Amino acid sequence: MTNKIPVGILGATGSVGQKFIELLTDHPWFEITELGASEKSAGKKYSDAVNWVMQKPLPDKFGEMLVKNCVPDFNSKLLFSALDASVAGKIETEFANEGYIIVSNARNHRFDEDVPLMIPEVNPDHLELIKKQKYSGAIVTNPNCSTIGLAMALKPLEEKFGIEAINVVTMQAVSGSGYPGMSSMDMIDNVVPFIGGEEEKMQTEPSKIFGKLSTDGTFNSADFNISAQCNRVPVIDGHLECVQVKLKNKLSRQELISAWENFSSEPQALNLPSAPRYPVKYTFNEKHPQPKTHRNEGNGMTVTVGRLRECNLFDYKFIVLSHNTVRGAAGGTILNAELMKAKGYLDKIL
Amino acid sequence: MTNKIPVGILGATGSVGQKFIELLTDHPWFEITELGASEKSAGKKYSDAVNWVMQKPLPDKFGEMLVKNCVPDFNSKLLFSALDASVAGKIETEFANEGYIIVSNARNHRFDEDVPLMIPEVNPDHLELIKKQKYSGAIVTNPNCSTIGLAMALKPLEEKFGIEAINVVTMQAVSGSGYPGMSSMDMIDNVVPFIGGEEEKMQTEPSKIFGKLSTDGTFNSADFNISAQCNRVPVIDGHLECVQVKLKNKLSRQELISAWENFSSEPQALNLPSAPRYPVKYTFNEKHPQPKTHRNEGNGMTVTVGRLRECNLFDYKFIVLSHNTVRGAAGGTILNAELMKAKGYLDKIL
Amino acid sequence: MTNKIPVGILGATGSVGQKFIELLTDHPWFEITELGASEKSAGKKYSDAVNWVMQKPLPDKFGEMLVKNCVPDFNSKLLFSALDASVAGKIETEFANEGYIIVSNARNHRFDEDVPLMIPEVNPDHLELIKKQKYSGAIVTNPNCSTIGLAMALKPLEEKFGIEAINVVTMQAVSGSGYPGMSSMDMIDNVVPFIGGEEEKMQTEPSKIFGKLSTDGTFNSADFNISAQCNRVPVIDGHLECVQVKLKNKLSRQELISAWENFSSEPQALNLPSAPRYPVKYTFNEKHPQPKTHRNEGNGMTVTVGRLRECNLFDYKFIVLSHNTVRGAAGGTILNAELMKAKGYLDKIL
Amino acid sequence: MTNKIPVGILGATGSVGQKFIELLTDHPWFEITELGASEKSAGKKYSDAVNWVMQKPLPDKFGEMLVKNCVPDFNSKLLFSALDASVAGKIETEFANEGYIIVSNARNHRFDEDVPLMIPEVNPDHLELIKKQKYSGAIVTNPNCSTIGLAMALKPLEEKFGIEAINVVTMQAVSGSGYPGMSSMDMIDNVVPFIGGEEEKMQTEPSKIFGKLSTDGTFNSADFNISAQCNRVPVIDGHLECVQVKLKNKLSRQELISAWENFSSEPQALNLPSAPRYPVKYTFNEKHPQPKTHRNEGNGMTVTVGRLRECNLFDYKFIVLSHNTVRGAAGGTILNAELMKAKGYLDKIL
Repeated sequence: MTNKIPVGILGATGSVGQKFIELLTDHPWFEITELGASEKSAGKKYSDAVNWVMQKPLPDKFGEMLVKNCVPDFNSKLLFSALDASVAGKIETEFANEGYIIVSNARNHRFDEDVPLMIPEVNPDHLELIKKQKYSGAIVTNPNCSTIGLAMALKPLEEKFGIEAINVVTMQAVSGSGYPGMSSMDMIDNVVPFIGGEEEKMQTEPSKIFGKLSTDGTFNSADFNISAQCNRVPVIDGHLECVQVKLKNKLSRQELISAWENFSSEPQALNLPSAPRYPVKYTFNEKHPQPKTHRNEGNGMTVTVGRLRECNLFDYKFIVLSHNTVRGAAGGTILNAELMKAKGYLDKIL
Repeated sequence: MTNKIPVGILGATGSVGQKFIELLTDHPWFEITELGASEKSAGKKYSDAVNWVMQKPLPDKFGEMLVKNCVPDFNSKLLFSALDASVAGKIETEFANEGYIIVSNARNHRFDEDVPLMIPEVNPDHLELIKKQKYSGAIVTNPNCSTIGLAMALKPLEEKFGIEAINVVTMQAVSGSGYPGMSSMDMIDNVVPFIGGEEEKMQTEPSKIFGKLSTDGTFNSADFNISAQCNRVPVIDGHLECVQVKLKNKLSRQELISAWENFSSEPQALNLPSAPRYPVKYTFNEKHPQPKTHRNEGNGMTVTVGRLRECNLFDYKFIVLSHNTVRGAAGGTILNAELMKAKGYLDKIL
Repeated sequence: MTNKIPVGILGATGSVGQKFIELLTDHPWFEITELGASEKSAGKKYSDAVNWVMQKPLPDKFGEMLVKNCVPDFNSKLLFSALDASVAGKIETEFANEGYIIVSNARNHRFDEDVPLMIPEVNPDHLELIKKQKYSGAIVTNPNCSTIGLAMALKPLEEKFGIEAINVVTMQAVSGSGYPGMSSMDMIDNVVPFIGGEEEKMQTEPSKIFGKLSTDGTFNSADFNISAQCNRVPVIDGHLECVQVKLKNKLSRQELISAWENFSSEPQALNLPSAPRYPVKYTFNEKHPQPKTHRNEGNGMTVTVGRLRECNLFDYKFIVLSHNTVRGAAGGTILNAELMKAKGYLDKIL
Repeated sequence: MTNKIPVGILGATGSVGQKFIELLTDHPWFEITELGASEKSAGKKYSDAVNWVMQKPLPDKFGEMLVKNCVPDFNSKLLFSALDASVAGKIETEFANEGYIIVSNARNHRFDEDVPLMIPEVNPDHLELIKKQKYSGAIVTNPNCSTIGLAMALKPLEEKFGIEAINVVTMQAVSGSGYPGMSSMDMIDNVVPFIGGEEEKMQTEPSKIFGKLSTDGTFNSADFNISAQCNRVPVIDGHLECVQVKLKNKLSRQELISAWENFSSEPQALNLPSAPRYPVKYTFNEKHPQPKTHRNEGNGMTVTVGRLRECNLFDYKFIVLSHNTVRGAAGGTILNAELMKAKGYLDKIL
């Protein structure tokens, strides 16, 4: 018997669902007690339903669990959603209407005006938006993987200097498209300069993430100008981004680096289990950051920044590296749930 | 006995030198009669001196040639230089002083004010600069591989609309760093966001390439604002570039595409042997261009452009793909020599 | 109007079907006039039905063709089959019963006792088996891609020395599993030591290929002992095989090399359009053959052998490299059709 | 102040030297107090002398250490040698003559008749050979990386069934050739079927490893017949081997699997810090083991075996996967030192 909070995974057989299982296996607060997936999988033992692609083997206790249908008869009231966007919208709404708290990695509800689009280090106060929800439960979402790394790197700058414009070109890992995802025929000796819908997400999500929620409940999006170009490269994990920014207050290179080095936020203050000691790290090696070398910094939750230099067209340019399936997906979602727990947002289901 | 012009290769054992040999093997105008390399190789049979890394086997006739020292006692008066930048400056000057015409891929003389930095489709008139040279011979250079693809894609736009600002982020192939070049330890499951000196080259060379040479001999550099960020990716051949431009005259997407599709220049008019039928091709497939699929367009001499779309920060953004060792190095240099021949600049050595 | 033989492709939208189109585009004897595929594609323009993955662009004339259902109402009587094994057996039989000559790359009829399992350089006399067929048309098959490279390398040895036992371990390219085929998640920084059904094919097909067809029509399989182990590696094209052989007559290393170097067969004697000048080439460079360097030898139709050395357990061991989608699939099938044409087996449909 | 045994690293700047540092950083018994390298590095801070290529960052305490020359004036008497074979022979002898105990990963002394070629799970009794050494110190070596995985997988079989013949074909990771090692030009979209000296090592080392040391001190090599073929594939870490064996006693597939599953040896009995719980693990998934999925089993010290099947030419064939720089190099060497400590062989220097 344990005192941990029982949780379920919706969409447990996909690669993000598997990552949730991997990251929650020894979690100090949460314990997976139910796994949900599509009708095709429901009723099977999880080990029979899943094509396990994580690097560590599937723990036996999960392999033996029976997969459930994604209908609102779960015993655990806290659910992590790794559902595919083709079904997530409707299913998440059904669960939230039945009192479940959904912490989701799916994109469907990201722009609902009463749903927080959360990165705990960036906009923890947006959790307040939940109060506007008419669900008996709740829905909280996290941004797209490529947006998260970007927003984490921008937050310390935005706080200190204000941001006017952002230009970003990404080189994204194949794990971002799930399994099987990208064909090896396209990813050996090649780069694909297109990821469906990705540029649109990167151009719209930051405005909501950096929006201001007033005490009277009004919400104003940030008015950034953003251009994004997204490429898929032959890398397993780790999104690399070439970022250029125009700042409202022009400050020195050293001031920017200090802003990153000194950045710490609510997850660090609350000492959340998945919070990295350093949410952002600056590296001085001119060849860094690189996916293979830096993706596991802070157990995949630290975002690494490097090569800050002045720009002929913007104020500054620099490189950002984040682990797309940890900080950029399952790990970020878990950190959202931890923040909710720490701030009392789970009390009603406990 | 042949009527072809005898030519030599300086720096014949390196990977660019090998590419010269590959591309000149059946050339209709030029015939390789001498191979030069460092003292370490001089005196050896070429097949013993070289670590041949081209995909097609080394033709026997070149394998049997004795490698010469790079001193000005060559019989052929036209020399292609693939010399390393550490020695190219001095050696090329020595040869030019002794009456040799040097068509070079090395960077050393690129910014000499009397040396053309040539792309035949872009600035063929710059050949006139040679007349200012005090050499009894001559030196002509071509730009850096990543600059060439960019400049080719920009030329039709610059002609019709004028360019104010250029932002470019590259994903460059490993062949650009020669052999052995990048370690496989750095290029499997990884991207390296740094290439020494490359960003500086891309930020300075276009201004000279697009500069105006007046009839009175005065030369004015173009006044572009350029920012470049350069990355190395696990691709053998083919540099991909994400480009953003601000134009002087705002025109429609269709007008830009037409400018590329209708672009043709002096090498096409002169029907030069290495000139591609289409110097620039626009592709409408949203996943294109890609290195593996498009690098060999026009025998590696065509630059492919795709994904033209409006930009939130500049006027337009698009993708450029060019073969870095053909159009971007040896092939481009050979086209320079062909242009010189066609326009009479080789007459004095024939 | 042309005098070429009109041909159709069955299964034209898959990657082998596309390779047939690529290789037949400028064929001197055959002209593609019909393209067949599944019901899902039938009625569409080929360019709309296909996800073209070849490196050269799809020629417009094929893009405009309407795709037909694979039912026996084709006008062309010679059909190349790139059908999937799940449907090939039945469809090929239907066409053959209606008088069509099917030259197939599918595995379904390979072991029918009246169907030749053909490699033109290895067992051209097996074409005689057709005479036993009760079809008004005919079916001819070629072996599995990994078997073809092996059989080509063994043929000169078998002729001169006799073969007792064969051990082979393969490292096979991803194009062998079609498109999308292998996931990039499995093929970046990884090897997969399993290919479904492949080891069984390599262990059984050589016995039929090297079987003896007597003048009285009796057929005796060769009695090789074969063990095969098959691995998938991150290579686009080109299967590499580590081969060990026990020979009936023990001869010298030099005699084996001479056997390969002097090997020539009926396709070379008949000067068939797709026949390589050298069906097998021996390389003396100890690091060769390699997929990237040698797969395009003889336009992908030459098999390269290297590193012949004595073996502690067998007589000799060596490395074999062949292009799996050219010599090992579409190119091999086309050579089969060329041999049939040259030897009069197509006369009845002309 | 700590009670740990002070140790030094010879050849600390190379990639194996770095791996020693990584693996010894928090070792419960050993503490690195000195780092030795070539004259070029001596006198520098380690962080200035090294090009650190490990995935985790270099701990500061080692970065600050001054690199020493590799001459026998070290304070720590236990030294791990990652020296290059070009200098290891002489340097290791010098140190051993001066009373140092050298636990080496270099190949130079492997076949000295009084030097153990050790894998702690396979031949721990060979440590006795040290008593024959005339050094005031001692030298112990470990086998080549590809041999270690093979020998670990064979040990349980050899114990139970006896081995007559071994055939092995390897697919080896690039980290095996150090840094920079293999060029990316050779390892993108390619396999290199040659590793200098590797096949010879695999064919000779097992006979010594499985040799019998009698109580009277006589040593008899095992009389295996072995053939090895070695290939380099585009994988960062993890050697995959296709193995075939002929056994003295013919037993069932299940008996072999049980032998692996029940295998445990002296490091497990002694509970050595680096000893994996399971030295060998058998996997029943037909697509396993794979480098990416299994190399980190048991912190890189477990060898994974899979796909056991009957063989047409030998008795059985199966797949072996081991981490080449952990179990196959630095980790294996450290386990050797741990065994020596546990069995009293370090007493004289403590």
